[in-house]
Amino acid sequence: MIKIDLNCDLGESFGNYSIGNDEEILNYVTSANIACGFHAGDATTMRKTVKLALEKKVGIGAHPGTQDLVGFGRREMNISPQEAYDIVVYQIGALSAFVHSEGGKLQHVKPHGALFNMAAKDAQLSEAIAEAVYKVDPELILFGLAGSELVKAGAKIGLKTASEVFSDRTYQDDGSLTSRRESNALITEQEVAVAQVVRMVKEGKVASVSGKDVDILADTVCIHGDGKHALAFAKLIHATLQKENIQVRRIGEA
Amino acid sequence: MIKIDLNCDLGESFGNYSIGNDEEILNYVTSANIACGFHAGDATTMRKTVKLALEKKVGIGAHPGTQDLVGFGRREMNISPQEAYDIVVYQIGALSAFVHSEGGKLQHVKPHGALFNMAAKDAQLSEAIAEAVYKVDPELILFGLAGSELVKAGAKIGLKTASEVFSDRTYQDDGSLTSRRESNALITEQEVAVAQVVRMVKEGKVASVSGKDVDILADTVCIHGDGKHALAFAKLIHATLQKENIQVRRIGEA
Amino acid sequence: MIKIDLNCDLGESFGNYSIGNDEEILNYVTSANIACGFHAGDATTMRKTVKLALEKKVGIGAHPGTQDLVGFGRREMNISPQEAYDIVVYQIGALSAFVHSEGGKLQHVKPHGALFNMAAKDAQLSEAIAEAVYKVDPELILFGLAGSELVKAGAKIGLKTASEVFSDRTYQDDGSLTSRRESNALITEQEVAVAQVVRMVKEGKVASVSGKDVDILADTVCIHGDGKHALAFAKLIHATLQKENIQVRRIGEA
Amino acid sequence: MIKIDLNCDLGESFGNYSIGNDEEILNYVTSANIACGFHAGDATTMRKTVKLALEKKVGIGAHPGTQDLVGFGRREMNISPQEAYDIVVYQIGALSAFVHSEGGKLQHVKPHGALFNMAAKDAQLSEAIAEAVYKVDPELILFGLAGSELVKAGAKIGLKTASEVFSDRTYQDDGSLTSRRESNALITEQEVAVAQVVRMVKEGKVASVSGKDVDILADTVCIHGDGKHALAFAKLIHATLQKENIQVRRIGEA
Repeated sequence: MIKIDLNCDLGESFGNYSIGNDEEILNYVTSANIACGFHAGDATTMRKTVKLALEKKVGIGAHPGTQDLVGFGRREMNISPQEAYDIVVYQIGALSAFVHSEGGKLQHVKPHGALFNMAAKDAQLSEAIAEAVYKVDPELILFGLAGSELVKAGAKIGLKTASEVFSDRTYQDDGSLTSRRESNALITEQEVAVAQVVRMVKEGKVASVSGKDVDILADTVCIHGDGKHALAFAKLIHATLQKENIQVRRIGEA
Repeated sequence: MIKIDLNCDLGESFGNYSIGNDEEILNYVTSANIACGFHAGDATTMRKTVKLALEKKVGIGAHPGTQDLVGFGRREMNISPQEAYDIVVYQIGALSAFVHSEGGKLQHVKPHGALFNMAAKDAQLSEAIAEAVYKVDPELILFGLAGSELVKAGAKIGLKTASEVFSDRTYQDDGSLTSRRESNALITEQEVAVAQVVRMVKEGKVASVSGKDVDILADTVCIHGDGKHALAFAKLIHATLQKENIQVRRIGEA
Repeated sequence: MIKIDLNCDLGESFGNYSIGNDEEILNYVTSANIACGFHAGDATTMRKTVKLALEKKVGIGAHPGTQDLVGFGRREMNISPQEAYDIVVYQIGALSAFVHSEGGKLQHVKPHGALFNMAAKDAQLSEAIAEAVYKVDPELILFGLAGSELVKAGAKIGLKTASEVFSDRTYQDDGSLTSRRESNALITEQEVAVAQVVRMVKEGKVASVSGKDVDILADTVCIHGDGKHALAFAKLIHATLQKENIQVRRIGEA
Repeated sequence: MIKIDLNCDLGESFGNYSIGNDEEILNYVTSANIACGFHAGDATTMRKTVKLALEKKVGIGAHPGTQDLVGFGRREMNISPQEAYDIVVYQIGALSAFVHSEGGKLQHVKPHGALFNMAAKDAQLSEAIAEAVYKVDPELILFGLAGSELVKAGAKIGLKTASEVFSDRTYQDDGSLTSRRESNALITEQEVAVAQVVRMVKEGKVASVSGKDVDILADTVCIHGDGKHALAFAKLIHATLQKENIQVRRIGEA
């Protein structure tokens, strides 16, 4: 039976500020990437989100970002591989302590935003991140963009990796994501997005913006947790995958 | 043979800002309280300091503080026990990841500054901190002011605790520290400070500011790492204790 | 004709985080207290909120808070009068630059949260804050709790002050607010809240929780901007005051 | 008589962290670029540094940086022109309030670190920064690298600008600075550095690393305030310029 993991960024609230609909969305995803206090999240939010994820038996991942709270970790910044290593170790450790103290086990690590995007193209940065993950715990699964340097670096150091695909983004002929600066970067119709996911999972192929069929490896699908249609979309994709006889289960499950 | 631990706050540099003489002072102390990024320290400083401490075989402790970088964690603030729990779990986890990834094992936790002082007098806050330590790892040793609520809370939950005494602070009749607002709070002569420590360790007594002998339990002595005389004082106290046939070893040692 | 000012805390969004319904609520208040980046707000939010307030001809105030973003400036902390002075000068300056560059003029200053509450009872802190306001611009109006040390300190240094009353809080016999820790601190029925305001404005009296009539000076009424009923309440109180022949105009208006 | 301004980055201490030798170095420079709390500095440090500069009759400038305290504002980050505008307005305002409240007048604005370097090459970013300065106060002088986009943008919007040269950096054939990544980027011999400055000021020329003479406009020379030789070098350059009959005075002086 074909299997797939659905992941979502969660725990992005901060202090008095609330984002997302974590409790509801956790019913439809199998892996949660929980913000670790640098680009979003705080200690209290982390504890609460970890607890919720454990209750719903969702795989828990650290979602480390750059130290850019006001920019939500989305602005690329020129950090060195050593700095990337250090902030990833720090954030995995912080989240891990909540997971452990609530009786769970950390499943994976997925860099956030600018860190994720920079790592996708930068082998050195990716190797530093992969080493950070490996040194903290070699059993952790490293999530990265399908075909990215991050997935390669993870495999090279000996980590289990998860190739991530996007439901609501279009792809180029080389398998990379269309830049958000392009007008056709986003897929706004839910049916189109769902169909793209089903095909990526079942056939390992995605149609690029130029119409070419591109090979793509889909271990996990990224679902967005905020936005007003997020919950409805999560439900739809979860239901559709099951209807297609694809098993939706967390990636760390045997 | 009488044994004593010497602890020092280290890893307090931040980014471009440098504080203390960590590398030198690590030769004379047996336990290092390493800042965890809230009141001082950053991910890079934490990694470097952990590495140094491991090389010198010094016991490593997390030194969690309040989220008050500009105030160096020294300004008391009205945080709830739950908030204290959360920030302590977070910071122990962050430091622990560096200790673990460098091949070591975390020995202890000592709250910093305002958190240490508030906990000394506040049972609820102390219980929250002790629970945080226990939940992350029940083998950790909790450092607190001798006779404080924190030491009591640690013992109550089942943690090994270390009662801390100060070399350069005077004591009140009830065994509490003289407030820094008082003119006689600090001991500035090194010989007086050393003699006070030797007596606390050997006899379990300290003379209060009113001249009364007060019982005090000394498991570990706090040495200050910054200030121009810090290193000289660390050497002096280390040498004097050895001359007095007191074994200076890290508290976590069997 | 009796006059009153309605003020509201605005511009509390931060980066990717959104709070409140600033654009709508600005239609019903006459003075806006805009967060300055310490407890909430950021440079971009400040510019946008200043612009909106100018368009709606609402009086603009700086709303300085403690450096406690994760606590939203609500946790009392032990800052010195000098530190209070410094952070108030800083934040007034930052907001003032946006007001000036958008062609407006700063009207007032109202400390936020814990800073407001601590100042209400602490003469030294209040004098430091009043001096900060005065030194930056002696024409600024200082908002403080009616009967508080802050209002006294403002008057003493020569500032115009505005005594603030709350629509949704109950009062003690001495004219102070009932602590939020008490179960009867908040007025939840809108009609009761509105009636309390009308009476404070028209008669200068408020019934305490014990039923006693207490004298109170009401120059400005605080309206809350978040919460789901905030907008409806703002409309209701605005309409009721007008119906009662009370002129709702910004305090800085001649 | 030929005139020159000597500027230095000051007020870079933060909370418990101290950097530089501000009080001494202010005796040898004519313009101080004071950190505004984003990449370095805090409200208390700003007040103290402003006061010192006023006592020494040194021209005061705002030194706005990116919101990257741990990176000291030195890591290039992908901020939009609008974000640059906003953070520059904010920081000028904050510093300006201290200058004004201490009885002085702000003289100039010089972006810091990564913001300075990014603006040098990026016309859009430079225009946003220049607009921010102009909107806050069109009398302010904008400091930028000689020949940079920032100087051009300042002139274009109608600001007085100051072209800045470096004593301890080498130049390329096109008048740009040699990248710090190159081994020959820095001039370490003080005599060579001083001679380069004297020639830039007197002849408007600098020898590039390839040996070619390049035209350069020198309105102000950047002196570094930290490092152990900073003070000695400031004295040397100040004395040498006077010996060469070059008047060292602050740029804002008639």
